Amino acid sequence: MAKHFAEDFLVRQIFEGFSKAGQAGLRVGTGDDAALWQPRKGHETILTSDWFLEGTHFLRELHPPESVGWKCLARAASDIAAMGGTPRCFLLNLALPPAATGKWLSGFLDGLRRAAKVLGCALAGGDTTRQERILINVTVVGEVAKGRGVLRSGAHPDDLLFVSGRLGEAELGLRLLRKRRGSAGKTSAALRKHLYPEPRIALGSWLARNRLASAMMDVSDGLSTDLARLCETGGVGAVVSERALPTAEGVPQAEALGLALHGGDDYELLFTVPERQIRRFRRLWGNRPGVPVSCIGTITKQRKLLLMKDRAKATEIAPGGWDPFRS
Amino acid sequence: MAKHFAEDFLVRQIFEGFSKAGQAGLRVGTGDDAALWQPRKGHETILTSDWFLEGTHFLRELHPPESVGWKCLARAASDIAAMGGTPRCFLLNLALPPAATGKWLSGFLDGLRRAAKVLGCALAGGDTTRQERILINVTVVGEVAKGRGVLRSGAHPDDLLFVSGRLGEAELGLRLLRKRRGSAGKTSAALRKHLYPEPRIALGSWLARNRLASAMMDVSDGLSTDLARLCETGGVGAVVSERALPTAEGVPQAEALGLALHGGDDYELLFTVPERQIRRFRRLWGNRPGVPVSCIGTITKQRKLLLMKDRAKATEIAPGGWDPFRS
Repeated sequence: MAKHFAEDFLVRQIFEGFSKAGQAGLRVGTGDDAALWQPRKGHETILTSDWFLEGTHFLRELHPPESVGWKCLARAASDIAAMGGTPRCFLLNLALPPAATGKWLSGFLDGLRRAAKVLGCALAGGDTTRQERILINVTVVGEVAKGRGVLRSGAHPDDLLFVSGRLGEAELGLRLLRKRRGSAGKTSAALRKHLYPEPRIALGSWLARNRLASAMMDVSDGLSTDLARLCETGGVGAVVSERALPTAEGVPQAEALGLALHGGDDYELLFTVPERQIRRFRRLWGNRPGVPVSCIGTITKQRKLLLMKDRAKATEIAPGGWDPFRS
Repeated sequence: MAKHFAEDFLVRQIFEGFSKAGQAGLRVGTGDDAALWQPRKGHETILTSDWFLEGTHFLRELHPPESVGWKCLARAASDIAAMGGTPRCFLLNLALPPAATGKWLSGFLDGLRRAAKVLGCALAGGDTTRQERILINVTVVGEVAKGRGVLRSGAHPDDLLFVSGRLGEAELGLRLLRKRRGSAGKTSAALRKHLYPEPRIALGSWLARNRLASAMMDVSDGLSTDLARLCETGGVGAVVSERALPTAEGVPQAEALGLALHGGDDYELLFTVPERQIRRFRRLWGNRPGVPVSCIGTITKQRKLLLMKDRAKATEIAPGGWDPFRS
């Protein structure tokens, strides 16, 4: 009866090949008005949503559909990692032009399914409609042991400031993609990070489980913007050491520094560790998840963001990251 | 520091005046990477998302911003009602053109805040960005006592079919709005229903609590489309009595019938009651929530949708409701 509805047909195509209800805490998933979900015992639920829009967050002519599918879920899951949680299921909201319902959708779903598998996320539902441009909104549902969620606001003066991975690589990857300069050799790490970012879920939940981080968030709009947010919500400031910043390789130092400070889309974790936990942090580090972290500075009482060139010279960091409303 | 970010400023404006964390099961709400949420003891979580897009679901020149704010939450909450649940919090995803950040946004937030208050829903987070057209996606999180959620798929042959309120009123309201024929007299009920629909939360949870409904969904795309979905997922059919349909008042009978069968946006509840529960249903009905319901037909083993004009004459109902991909 309903099988000739174009929308229902499309919805069925989307649901195929994803984990079904009965997994990941889902009792009822796709195909009903809403999903029924429950975290494991002793856990609470984490909820986050993210836009991923053609023209704003990706370009149809530049970004392969597989990357769009991967990234729309990965970047939303990064917010779950930033609380120390584990993603479990997601709602996919997709608006498509008819021209994108064929080959484009098929590639998109390939990338999305791969991300869902790697991230352990079941499709729980969502909404589909038609639009001139491709619009994506993803809600990810995760879980964290009760009381272990790490907030943005917990940083205190003298806490040490850490960041995972390398900063600015994703922005470099975007530049390379724009110049259409291949995907081989030195450039491949940056390009891969731009197209297929890997949210730091193992690191985030390791930090939360061991109660090592006092504050945590993910770096998605650039360090200068996101560190300002972390400091503002905690009522603190920070001093960042220029030399300690883990920058992208294969580009001149000045460019690498600018990318590390202001480049977006990295989805690395920015977190603070109280001084009294530093020894324990270093001791437990032997069992760490396989991602490098760098100590890049210190939280200060003075509510400023300072960049130290050397012991004598400090400059204020102005937010220069991504802000869709800044003209 | 971050206070001069245009996006952060906008986000703060949006957060003002909504219920905060600590309410509605939210431990951490807006202002962090993600929200932390927990249903009351003995309850499970319900999750649903809905698009509400300028040009597709509303027109900026036709629909007051207060209605857009109300309706984007109300229609998503209707999916929670359709499971027999109670909405508790929501994620607001908003993409705006700069021209809509002033007066339009203010009216939108007025309507949204009113809906959030009436529906008992706290703002838990979301995402904001810039676009040429207004894009809205709302995820509503609700709860239902464990095992009491009513699914679409539970209808059995001989179950009686019910619907709440009147069908086709919202579509009539849209026609009236398009003709700009005032908002007074006979037309006001239809117009109000189109602009400010009231999801049937009390009725839905009453049915779930008393285990009266075998299947339930909300009518959002028109009865002919949604009843087909309910029947398909249950592997059944239905016979609907034309005379029993609760149609809009003040329009010719043929027009009212067409509106009742195919008009969208009603957000009424469509549900089935097993024969053996009918007595109990009628007995408990004295304590019912204050919304009328009508028995409009019977579920059948034969997988067809039939409309009975009188005892002798039946015609097949073809889906004629809203489908964004039907050309």
